[in-house]
Amino acid sequence: MTTMIDFTGPDLVPDARDALSDAQCRELLGTQIFGRVGITSGGLPCILPVCYVYDDGAIVFRTGAGTKLRAAASGDVLAFQVDDYDRRSGRGWCVLVLGRATVVTTEHEHEGLPTVDGYRYDGERDHYVRLHCELVSGRTIETTHRP
Amino acid sequence: MTTMIDFTGPDLVPDARDALSDAQCRELLGTQIFGRVGITSGGLPCILPVCYVYDDGAIVFRTGAGTKLRAAASGDVLAFQVDDYDRRSGRGWCVLVLGRATVVTTEHEHEGLPTVDGYRYDGERDHYVRLHCELVSGRTIETTHRP
Repeated sequence: MTTMIDFTGPDLVPDARDALSDAQCRELLGTQIFGRVGITSGGLPCILPVCYVYDDGAIVFRTGAGTKLRAAASGDVLAFQVDDYDRRSGRGWCVLVLGRATVVTTEHEHEGLPTVDGYRYDGERDHYVRLHCELVSGRTIETTHRP
Repeated sequence: MTTMIDFTGPDLVPDARDALSDAQCRELLGTQIFGRVGITSGGLPCILPVCYVYDDGAIVFRTGAGTKLRAAASGDVLAFQVDDYDRRSGRGWCVLVLGRATVVTTEHEHEGLPTVDGYRYDGERDHYVRLHCELVSGRTIETTHRP
């Protein structure tokens, strides 16, 4: 049930000199386990940390019965972001994903899921959300340090 | 021109066991130089990396004439987030800021600004945005690794 999102905002299409390819972005998604979900809640933007697994073209994370679950259950488009930045060299990269999420609810669907690192209070975070990577973009980051 | 935002979304009020105080959050904001701006653009959430300085209760960052500048200029509420997560220990923290932004335009206002680490293409990123930290929340992160 993947629907393409028609969105080409200026900052999501990085400067061609810095842009990462789709394959590079997806490879980088697989190297991390900690990222951030961006949602609009009550009309306001919000960024929430998650532990995740990149699995078969989707971001899978666990969550409790809060903002992230509601957004996923209502079919909202979520943003997902990972980055890495080395302060000393001033170099890094970032990958941004946009997509609709589904809540994985049936026992059968749970079976195929990878183990996701969970927050401490396991009992309260027993919902799995699968975010389909419909629009993936990324760029390298290079900053100049000026005294 | 600081207006309080009345917003108490569930995930912005962390579990009391993990919550960081306002003072702790602001101290952590001052320890980093790389964060993320969360905006709603065209109805969709978006997370964009920025280099910043925490200065006098505000986040200051430079940007080009893109999504972030438009959001700031139009008086939208922006989210700003920093975090730190150590993959080996599974521990970290995150701080989330919500506030309205202003574009710093006059020469006089520029004078008092700290030097902000800039992206490589300086000429294209010559706008300063000041995000007023109206709602600040944070939490510690502790994850369990399960094989």
